[in-house]
Amino acid sequence: MTDDPRLTPLAASLPPSVPFVGPEELERRRGAPFRARLGANESTFGPSPRAVEAMARAASEGWKYGDSTSHDLRAAIARHHGVDAAHVLVGEGIDGLLGLLVRLVVTHETPVVTSAGAYPTFNYHVAGFGGALHTVPFRNDHEDPEALAAKTRETGARLVYISNPDNPMGSWHDAATIAALAEALPEGALLILDEAYADFAPPEAIPPMTPEDPRVIRMRTFSKAHGLAGLRVGYAIGPAPLIAAFDRVRNHFGMTRPGQAGALAALEDRDWLASVVAQVAAARARISDIAAGSGLSALPSATNFVAVDCGGDGTLSRAVLDELATRGVFVRMPGVAPLDRCIRISCGRPEDLDVLEEVFPASLAAARNR
Amino acid sequence: MTDDPRLTPLAASLPPSVPFVGPEELERRRGAPFRARLGANESTFGPSPRAVEAMARAASEGWKYGDSTSHDLRAAIARHHGVDAAHVLVGEGIDGLLGLLVRLVVTHETPVVTSAGAYPTFNYHVAGFGGALHTVPFRNDHEDPEALAAKTRETGARLVYISNPDNPMGSWHDAATIAALAEALPEGALLILDEAYADFAPPEAIPPMTPEDPRVIRMRTFSKAHGLAGLRVGYAIGPAPLIAAFDRVRNHFGMTRPGQAGALAALEDRDWLASVVAQVAAARARISDIAAGSGLSALPSATNFVAVDCGGDGTLSRAVLDELATRGVFVRMPGVAPLDRCIRISCGRPEDLDVLEEVFPASLAAARNR
Repeated sequence: MTDDPRLTPLAASLPPSVPFVGPEELERRRGAPFRARLGANESTFGPSPRAVEAMARAASEGWKYGDSTSHDLRAAIARHHGVDAAHVLVGEGIDGLLGLLVRLVVTHETPVVTSAGAYPTFNYHVAGFGGALHTVPFRNDHEDPEALAAKTRETGARLVYISNPDNPMGSWHDAATIAALAEALPEGALLILDEAYADFAPPEAIPPMTPEDPRVIRMRTFSKAHGLAGLRVGYAIGPAPLIAAFDRVRNHFGMTRPGQAGALAALEDRDWLASVVAQVAAARARISDIAAGSGLSALPSATNFVAVDCGGDGTLSRAVLDELATRGVFVRMPGVAPLDRCIRISCGRPEDLDVLEEVFPASLAAARNR
Repeated sequence: MTDDPRLTPLAASLPPSVPFVGPEELERRRGAPFRARLGANESTFGPSPRAVEAMARAASEGWKYGDSTSHDLRAAIARHHGVDAAHVLVGEGIDGLLGLLVRLVVTHETPVVTSAGAYPTFNYHVAGFGGALHTVPFRNDHEDPEALAAKTRETGARLVYISNPDNPMGSWHDAATIAALAEALPEGALLILDEAYADFAPPEAIPPMTPEDPRVIRMRTFSKAHGLAGLRVGYAIGPAPLIAAFDRVRNHFGMTRPGQAGALAALEDRDWLASVVAQVAAARARISDIAAGSGLSALPSATNFVAVDCGGDGTLSRAVLDELATRGVFVRMPGVAPLDRCIRISCGRPEDLDVLEEVFPASLAAARNR
């Protein structure tokens, strides 16, 4: 219905595409479940048992709408980071928060800057509100803060996106580099610092919290280290007036009760988090070993995934990805060159990586013989 | 930050208000929990035990993102209504679906028609996307289809909203009247038929499913009869091209896994649904009796709430509502005259209505003595 005259001109102009095809949809297409689900940077280690228990309890109270202010969770997050709750907004995952932020800032042809190959869902939101997306290339498999700042000055961008640690390459910058990026931005620009993978990063990669800084909004999620991707809980930390502005457009009763309860319990279970982070570190090393066993190299990673350089171009990587899928392993890959010489493998449990180890050499060989 | 120059002109112009203050927030303000939660038309009877079990199971799989197409739930809904799945979209509650639909259709000053006193969250979305809202009054405590159609022709509205059965009065029209409204709309208008309360309505109020009709999109929810308000699951049934258009703007991974699993189990538990509907009918009668015991009359209702005429104006109703809250009973009331001569009481369990019965006479007396 691109020709439905009732759609706005913007809506009519949008492509019917989707940012990602989900693993269940891929499973339906291939007619069998995956043996190892290592494509969406989910935490196969699962959520904290305390979070599972809290969610099960919340299920029987599911007849109640969730607390519209996520008061208890928001307060706990604020305490955890040592900031006032006025600087914290809980929302339906970083995806949901990015959509709201773009809606607040972006209208017809508003310039926005990101890196070519960075998070597609952010780009989807920018397109969805009519913004003009400008990209700069990665540099040595890192997002390039200097180029992002220069492009922002050049285009007069209102929003600048960076993820640190980075998705899809797993690379990272130190806190001083991120702080310098904020300093280098012209007035009127807002830096989105996506820290979805912060829990896996070395401490020196994470800037101290300065939530009153009007130039930066940071985003965190319970989808990665906390293992709650299917509960849709993320949060933003930023200047109080900007945080308050979300109240003008958000779905006030949009949070689920199990999500609120699960995230609160997960936040409090520091032992589980530490255990997951340790298991992820071990999995990173093993994925690197599996790659080396086939003569490939893995990039250093500060996340719960590893970019493995397949040694060719995007066509080869795509073939490796397809051959892995044929053998029951779901992984993904970056969308642009030269990042797409890599495939991106999420850190799974030993049993998940056993499957990867089993099928990787044959998948690579088959891809090379195509 | 209304003066934040980074906000779009539209975002900067929006009021900081919220459609509803949630009961938890009201409890925090009063410093004590409510004894009876009868204000948000939640189902205090709870979700099906099978849904609770399904949600608890889904919690431990919460590390996985939800299926981006809600395939199984969507297929089950399609089977349930005897329509093709291409006519069905699952989303984050009717609130979320209304927001997306408004985004698809409404831009600067797009005319939209609804009834004065109808669903505030719909109006919030229309304002949030810059639409021009036109209202017609209720007529004898019913939404007025003829006036809605006339106002649509007069304003050239793209969207027309009606709820059947109606919120906040609980009244309803028969299917033929709703069908006649669709017929009476000019080309280029889309009727939103909000059937959140359909499960409680007499069968003759519900039009047959004609999902290919390009003039109508219907919305249903698991928040009311199915007792899953805190899981955020609703769905739309409409023409396939319009349903497909949502894919351009929705959060593809926005559904929670417990929500998907809980809704699927709830849909299949017809016995639980029938039991809830029967208990709601009994509760309606009892609320009517409680009102009569204080010399007040209750309006007929085809929903899980009852509008009780307090016999005065909005000031009296507001006082009754406040006095009830002081005594631990949470209820709500319509926002405009003359509907606001009533308070709106949700159908609770016998123990909830025991509390209502206990405090109602004193609350009314105190309100009259203010």
